[in-house]
Amino acid sequence: MSHNPTDTFEIKKAATSKIDSVDFENLPFGSIFTDHMMYCDYKDGQWGTPVIEPYAPIPMDPSSRVFHYGQAIFEGMKAYKDEQDEIWLFRPDQNFIRFNKSATRLAMPEVPEPVFMEGLKQLINIDKDWVKKGKGNSLYLRPFMIATGHGVIASPSAQYRFMIIMSPAKSYYQGEVKVLIAEHYSRAANGGIGAAKAAGNYSAQFYPTRLANEQGYQQVIWTDDATHTKLEEAGTMNVFFKINDTLYTAPTSERILDGVTRKSILELAKRDNIKLEVRSVLVAELLEAAKDGSLKEIFGAGTAAVINPIIGFAYQDNYYELPKQENPIALEIKDKLTNIQHKLAEDTFGWTVKI
Amino acid sequence: MSHNPTDTFEIKKAATSKIDSVDFENLPFGSIFTDHMMYCDYKDGQWGTPVIEPYAPIPMDPSSRVFHYGQAIFEGMKAYKDEQDEIWLFRPDQNFIRFNKSATRLAMPEVPEPVFMEGLKQLINIDKDWVKKGKGNSLYLRPFMIATGHGVIASPSAQYRFMIIMSPAKSYYQGEVKVLIAEHYSRAANGGIGAAKAAGNYSAQFYPTRLANEQGYQQVIWTDDATHTKLEEAGTMNVFFKINDTLYTAPTSERILDGVTRKSILELAKRDNIKLEVRSVLVAELLEAAKDGSLKEIFGAGTAAVINPIIGFAYQDNYYELPKQENPIALEIKDKLTNIQHKLAEDTFGWTVKI
Repeated sequence: MSHNPTDTFEIKKAATSKIDSVDFENLPFGSIFTDHMMYCDYKDGQWGTPVIEPYAPIPMDPSSRVFHYGQAIFEGMKAYKDEQDEIWLFRPDQNFIRFNKSATRLAMPEVPEPVFMEGLKQLINIDKDWVKKGKGNSLYLRPFMIATGHGVIASPSAQYRFMIIMSPAKSYYQGEVKVLIAEHYSRAANGGIGAAKAAGNYSAQFYPTRLANEQGYQQVIWTDDATHTKLEEAGTMNVFFKINDTLYTAPTSERILDGVTRKSILELAKRDNIKLEVRSVLVAELLEAAKDGSLKEIFGAGTAAVINPIIGFAYQDNYYELPKQENPIALEIKDKLTNIQHKLAEDTFGWTVKI
Repeated sequence: MSHNPTDTFEIKKAATSKIDSVDFENLPFGSIFTDHMMYCDYKDGQWGTPVIEPYAPIPMDPSSRVFHYGQAIFEGMKAYKDEQDEIWLFRPDQNFIRFNKSATRLAMPEVPEPVFMEGLKQLINIDKDWVKKGKGNSLYLRPFMIATGHGVIASPSAQYRFMIIMSPAKSYYQGEVKVLIAEHYSRAANGGIGAAKAAGNYSAQFYPTRLANEQGYQQVIWTDDATHTKLEEAGTMNVFFKINDTLYTAPTSERILDGVTRKSILELAKRDNIKLEVRSVLVAELLEAAKDGSLKEIFGAGTAAVINPIIGFAYQDNYYELPKQENPIALEIKDKLTNIQHKLAEDTFGWTVKI
């Protein structure tokens, strides 16, 4: 009988918890981690026994491929605790599918579903006290995979580590966000890895974003790299535009991430008869709409912030401030989504999954 | 008086050397490392004391930014030992300059020249027995920098580690290389990080290269991502084409790496009256030249292989084999370059620097 290495988890519990030292009312995003971490190593063509052990540094050979050739992918997810102390995930199947799509694009092995899903469940259960009740509270989950094989040869690694770490989070509010529309820099190429949640996509954005910051803009709205005429993403989020009474967002492509929040908004809009068109919005259209007053809202959509309203944008040295809305669709959608996530509204979609 | 942290290196020598266990006649590229490594940490806005210590795994927090957001850059260099046991570097200034250009593009701090240059010299001196005499032998040097700051927040790290590791190398021969011209995939975007030696650029190439491998091609010739009509790089190397009696290579750009071997070939061609034009070669031109017999040679140029001759290419399901040349320019250039590197020919350029 062959041994299935994912049948059992090897669990080493921490002797003490650091939870009492954490101020859950003042949580810097993504900086404090729970007592445990989960990992599973891939070598000789197969996955080993998943391990849960106390959160701690991991020893890495200096020639590990991730340091030199960037084979690294991740997912961002959240767990929520309802008033009955049940813990819920939001569409984890979508993250799992996307994770393995990213893996394939980066020439990394797919992670077996039990390693990913049971890994999440077992780790959350062990650190369940870190998930706090109340809207706005969540436990941010970070599954990721790195190339751990040794050698400075530019070819795919033969060894990998899949890991999950978790960080308690308050609702993520970035303040009033102004964005700069990219005229020169870009985040993704046709035939590139822009659709993957690959580490390399993010580091490419830091320098242009820093330049935007220095001009007073918190984020960049990325445009297509060939013509810089199509609006594609806002920072690390998918972007939506409300022109007159219709929402617009770009179709997914090799340059655009297939965001879980983005696709949930699409389904929500369909259910609730919110007018929404999936098509590229041109920079020229946005300028026209800003000038004639038909541009009502812009917002980013992603797991960390859920919805991130944008108050204005700059393009070619002109700044366009959006009109203040009485009942912005951005907040309506955010409320609907977070109510489903926190089990405060009926989940007619079957998106929430109990741990 | 302020303390300059790069005045002194902290050196901890290995108790024993593993050099006697290494078969220097059979060295897999980039897999065996010398006894020591060098590192220098950046935090609180400044570089600390450079350290040389025995090569060993380094502890990394699982939330280290390099794992999640891909802030990682590197250089590839070589050291050569001449017949008088002197050790030489080849144009290290060029690698240093490019390293800091990559750092800037990835929103990482520049590495001070003494940390980079003295780091190389001191580390090579300590492990000088690992540099073997004789043409074809070299010590491959790998300076790199990774983001070591903690936290799953998509913004530049506040902490970094600069490192140098070294691997003894024999001349790098890939066998007869056939390449596939990319029609869909690409390695770089306009306004992206293709010109930087960034880890993320490499992982993006692995999957398309694997697909090419499965069709019997060892490498991909990358084309521009917008139109796929311009020939840009071959695998991880700059690419040259000889049509009639003229060499062609693409100009450097945001999509193309400013290779040290590439620029040395340009200078060599000028000195020795080899006809060379720096301009984009179109796929259509290449096909035409292959058909009418004016296409004589294709080769890649980079530090690891120096010159890598290509014997044929495929495009849209057609394979074009190049004619065998009596005295290929690729080998002539390779000889000239490697003779300068190994101090077997006069270095009229001042490229070689004694350790």
